[in-house]
Amino acid sequence: MSTRPTVLLAPHFRTLEEIFDPRDLERLASFSEVVWARDEPLPEAELDALLPEAWAYIGTSQPLDAARLATAPKLRAVIEVAGGFPPSIDYQTCFARGIRVLSCAPAFGAQVAEMALAMALAGGRGLVREHEAFRRGDEAWQVDRPAWDSTLFGQQVGLLGFGSLAQNLLPLLAPFGCHIRVFDPWLPPTLIEEKGCQPTDLDDMLAASRVLFVLATPTPENRALLSAEKLALLPDSALVVLISRAHLVDFEALTEAVTSGKLQAAIDVFPSEEPFTPNHPIRTAANAILSPHRAASSKKERREIGRMVVDDLELMERGLPPRRLQVAEPEHSDEEA
Amino acid sequence: MSTRPTVLLAPHFRTLEEIFDPRDLERLASFSEVVWARDEPLPEAELDALLPEAWAYIGTSQPLDAARLATAPKLRAVIEVAGGFPPSIDYQTCFARGIRVLSCAPAFGAQVAEMALAMALAGGRGLVREHEAFRRGDEAWQVDRPAWDSTLFGQQVGLLGFGSLAQNLLPLLAPFGCHIRVFDPWLPPTLIEEKGCQPTDLDDMLAASRVLFVLATPTPENRALLSAEKLALLPDSALVVLISRAHLVDFEALTEAVTSGKLQAAIDVFPSEEPFTPNHPIRTAANAILSPHRAASSKKERREIGRMVVDDLELMERGLPPRRLQVAEPEHSDEEA
Amino acid sequence: MSTRPTVLLAPHFRTLEEIFDPRDLERLASFSEVVWARDEPLPEAELDALLPEAWAYIGTSQPLDAARLATAPKLRAVIEVAGGFPPSIDYQTCFARGIRVLSCAPAFGAQVAEMALAMALAGGRGLVREHEAFRRGDEAWQVDRPAWDSTLFGQQVGLLGFGSLAQNLLPLLAPFGCHIRVFDPWLPPTLIEEKGCQPTDLDDMLAASRVLFVLATPTPENRALLSAEKLALLPDSALVVLISRAHLVDFEALTEAVTSGKLQAAIDVFPSEEPFTPNHPIRTAANAILSPHRAASSKKERREIGRMVVDDLELMERGLPPRRLQVAEPEHSDEEA
Amino acid sequence: MSTRPTVLLAPHFRTLEEIFDPRDLERLASFSEVVWARDEPLPEAELDALLPEAWAYIGTSQPLDAARLATAPKLRAVIEVAGGFPPSIDYQTCFARGIRVLSCAPAFGAQVAEMALAMALAGGRGLVREHEAFRRGDEAWQVDRPAWDSTLFGQQVGLLGFGSLAQNLLPLLAPFGCHIRVFDPWLPPTLIEEKGCQPTDLDDMLAASRVLFVLATPTPENRALLSAEKLALLPDSALVVLISRAHLVDFEALTEAVTSGKLQAAIDVFPSEEPFTPNHPIRTAANAILSPHRAASSKKERREIGRMVVDDLELMERGLPPRRLQVAEPEHSDEEA
Repeated sequence: MSTRPTVLLAPHFRTLEEIFDPRDLERLASFSEVVWARDEPLPEAELDALLPEAWAYIGTSQPLDAARLATAPKLRAVIEVAGGFPPSIDYQTCFARGIRVLSCAPAFGAQVAEMALAMALAGGRGLVREHEAFRRGDEAWQVDRPAWDSTLFGQQVGLLGFGSLAQNLLPLLAPFGCHIRVFDPWLPPTLIEEKGCQPTDLDDMLAASRVLFVLATPTPENRALLSAEKLALLPDSALVVLISRAHLVDFEALTEAVTSGKLQAAIDVFPSEEPFTPNHPIRTAANAILSPHRAASSKKERREIGRMVVDDLELMERGLPPRRLQVAEPEHSDEEA
Repeated sequence: MSTRPTVLLAPHFRTLEEIFDPRDLERLASFSEVVWARDEPLPEAELDALLPEAWAYIGTSQPLDAARLATAPKLRAVIEVAGGFPPSIDYQTCFARGIRVLSCAPAFGAQVAEMALAMALAGGRGLVREHEAFRRGDEAWQVDRPAWDSTLFGQQVGLLGFGSLAQNLLPLLAPFGCHIRVFDPWLPPTLIEEKGCQPTDLDDMLAASRVLFVLATPTPENRALLSAEKLALLPDSALVVLISRAHLVDFEALTEAVTSGKLQAAIDVFPSEEPFTPNHPIRTAANAILSPHRAASSKKERREIGRMVVDDLELMERGLPPRRLQVAEPEHSDEEA
Repeated sequence: MSTRPTVLLAPHFRTLEEIFDPRDLERLASFSEVVWARDEPLPEAELDALLPEAWAYIGTSQPLDAARLATAPKLRAVIEVAGGFPPSIDYQTCFARGIRVLSCAPAFGAQVAEMALAMALAGGRGLVREHEAFRRGDEAWQVDRPAWDSTLFGQQVGLLGFGSLAQNLLPLLAPFGCHIRVFDPWLPPTLIEEKGCQPTDLDDMLAASRVLFVLATPTPENRALLSAEKLALLPDSALVVLISRAHLVDFEALTEAVTSGKLQAAIDVFPSEEPFTPNHPIRTAANAILSPHRAASSKKERREIGRMVVDDLELMERGLPPRRLQVAEPEHSDEEA
Repeated sequence: MSTRPTVLLAPHFRTLEEIFDPRDLERLASFSEVVWARDEPLPEAELDALLPEAWAYIGTSQPLDAARLATAPKLRAVIEVAGGFPPSIDYQTCFARGIRVLSCAPAFGAQVAEMALAMALAGGRGLVREHEAFRRGDEAWQVDRPAWDSTLFGQQVGLLGFGSLAQNLLPLLAPFGCHIRVFDPWLPPTLIEEKGCQPTDLDDMLAASRVLFVLATPTPENRALLSAEKLALLPDSALVVLISRAHLVDFEALTEAVTSGKLQAAIDVFPSEEPFTPNHPIRTAANAILSPHRAASSKKERREIGRMVVDDLELMERGLPPRRLQVAEPEHSDEEA
């Protein structure tokens, strides 16, 4: 009779091939009994049949309410693979029972930060705008656009949010010697100062920033935080890099500020996708760089999800705490409900 | 009778306002007698009249041959403000007489390196290509293009040239943890290793590089160094960042490699400008990012030229060596002749 | 009737003045009701009287067993100020009830890492040994001792333990370009590789390291992990920097290796203190640098404890998770019992 | 008949084995004719016999005046291997003829900077003082000495001199986040600001610095620059790290400041050596760390001299400028005469 713990592997909408290097799947199988493991939706009946033996459950397409958790006495880990904690889990029960709820969000940090830097540089240096002129055949040689162009060196930069995405961005900004202001009401100012940044309130940050990175995790409190009124505080021709999430911005107000020539924007996240409003005015705004939600689009990085999952389960199987995935915390458990 | 040295200020084609912050001009006037100082071409007769008293000559629109230098017994500094040592100076005479010949090229290093990074990131992450799709209304959401997309993190990078431009680029690349191969036959391998890079020959560098930065100073020896044969050594879908100079590349071969789908390219320097061939096939190549020679286009940085000029003249007036502009070296003096 | 939470402040053996800047105490009082707050031991009766109202308890001189925790229904935070999680707390009850158990250990990380670097440099460069010769009047000028002296540049370094202390040390070592091997069985190898280090097993790390930093947290499993047999694996004249804790080393075996001339050691932690064995042979070992447990001795840093405590309570009072102190984790809760 | 250039190798007082890795000597012989190459003084007659064919002369024990240089028509490089430009060379003739005069000083930069950091940390953290107490058996456990101890983190630091030694030290200080003031009258303030430091005058730097690094090259102007009056400007219990050279300090005034308890000092360079005054009061000063001129004492680094010499001659043989050794500049040529 096996004493190896049972891992219920049900990552659909993602595929196994997408998030696991074969060597990581082998590694997982070396210390656990992997069940289900199919590239299709897990039926509720199947879930209910497998939960009583499950030690870890990867994939969270079905609600994990108190009743269901009660049927899973061996459960120690619940791991989501989309990139954020779903509201469908009964977190309080998990905390009380010592079940780790883990998110794969950290797998995306590096490449999203890279895209944010790419957008800031492309915007500041007019790379996309002049490329479009070149395509039209009316490029202007060796011309600067003092009103719009700027380098990141010594720049006044604002970070809206100082979580893991900002932590990934900071080392990329470091060589530019920017003056970085931060608004993050969830963190003590000392933590921001320790990283060489200046904690400020929202208005002061906006008024001072030539480049604003929108990096905060969405919560009910920060919906449309960047309203028309707040956007008006930014300096003329400032660049807004909108990378996570459209939720944080009044998107129509941002569009108006960009089309009117007040602001520039580089946008990776939109209020809706597939299709995004076909005739939306942001589509033709000269001062906009448009990216169809591709900040976390690299295949290589999606296999980082699988690596982190197996790394942490390997630790937990040995009685050690997880170290790579994001751990749900009691204080945040219902923020997205 | 004044003992202050005479500075002949004749920067035309640049304007005084363009390269000097007013405070730097004041600073210059505080320790020297500034003459000419007009935004127009310096007539030869005027030059000949002013040289006998000149201690420094800023701007090099007229040839400085041995005969002319013989009329300038007080001359200690010749400073060009275009960005490279002109062949119209008799360097050997300057060296023999201890006249410093100085170039403003270092004023451009930071912003050119920034543009090189912007191009590498925009190319690697498909930023321009997907933006164009977005403009056309056929953007694909959350899609990766495994053949073309790549992050800089841990990337195989090649540097063709390891001079001051590469020195400016290295700190910007540092946070990405790239494996950097370098081909620079003018430098000892130890110097390259000291910077954490791997010295290689040209072919090995090309064969290994997913991103190739072309950074070398043009010389007679490296004209069209990147021939069709050499470009063929690059891995499929590698990205060529051509930032200095078109001289180094067989431009038609590069165009062919890009239009055929073998390579990507981000190009800031072209074989000709204003106008660049209207129907050149690179203009419509899907895998190309096109920039009309704008890597050094920021106004803020051009005033860095003036700051460096006055910094160094201030030092020289005190009997100290220049420290900010690039100093012509005997061994390189005729390379561009 | 006040709705402000009650903070039971009982940090003795530390003093209030020692760990709190007055501004941090004011800050604490601005959002909470601070009780006790005396520089003397908290009597058990007093503790029992105050616990029923306590929201946070700073200082853990008395056991917090299940019975006592049952009398504290409002308790959300237990904060120790010595520098490690005490075994006298019923962690499982705390986890089940969502009570945060927090340690001030992170307040010491920076200065302990600094001392570790100081010891490694002083040892490697013979600073203490030659100073002692100078005091005796028999200093040797400009002499190197090839067998003993070494620089950190490019050095083979081993880290026994890769926790928060190692994280503080890594940036200090970064400019030296060391090759760093790490043994830490609690962490996934990927996490070590991400930081640019090489995960190895213990024997391989020891065999390769010219400088070994002993940084691990003591656990029952790692007592005397560095036995005579393991120390023998180190290269001749390697330097052992013993900074946390003597627990990890067979101290007599280390002493023998140092007095016999096999190894060098820089030691901040000893098997006992005040008094440490008066005639212990390590006291006169020529190859030893001796420090009476002073790695965390700076007053400025002890006030960092108070700052972190108030920072985290401020967050928790707003319903946010703590961010500065170390949070006890379920998997580690009984390791030191 | 060979066309390989002749290299006159006469490094005595150093030995060939000391400064050359055998592979570097082989490399030198691969492109040049090496003559003399003995570990003994080069007689003047021998020098005069060899100079007419010499292309490079390594070692400068004999004066190279104008008459002698006139006998060496093929000479292109004069390389000293002690660590500083000797006054016995006719620099003006060398400059006029395009002969490179090169110094091996850069070979020492890294290890001297490391020693400077070692001394600053050992001094700031009381490492040597408490070790001495430990040796005496009266160590005090876990005690801080607020008046004397300090960490480098966030410290007020002064650099007297911002040449190549300071450039080697800056990256080692970077992780500590010090506020660095610099006094260097040979450099433009912009150059100091670019490195993230604050240019100041001497008095302001002294008044603000808790740790002062004395790094300047000796010149006639800076002899005993740190007089009793200047030392009195330093804050009480500041630490003076004297690493290059005693020349810059009124050594008796420094001794008085240290023995009186006003200052701490860590000293690697003394007014005289072998023997240094046997009963000099600095020998017993409690606040002094004494090092018998060992900052550049590592054998490994002395072979860096040979590597740099061969690297640069290899370049010069190909018509390229030297890149590793320090190049004598016209403006500095007679400063040490």
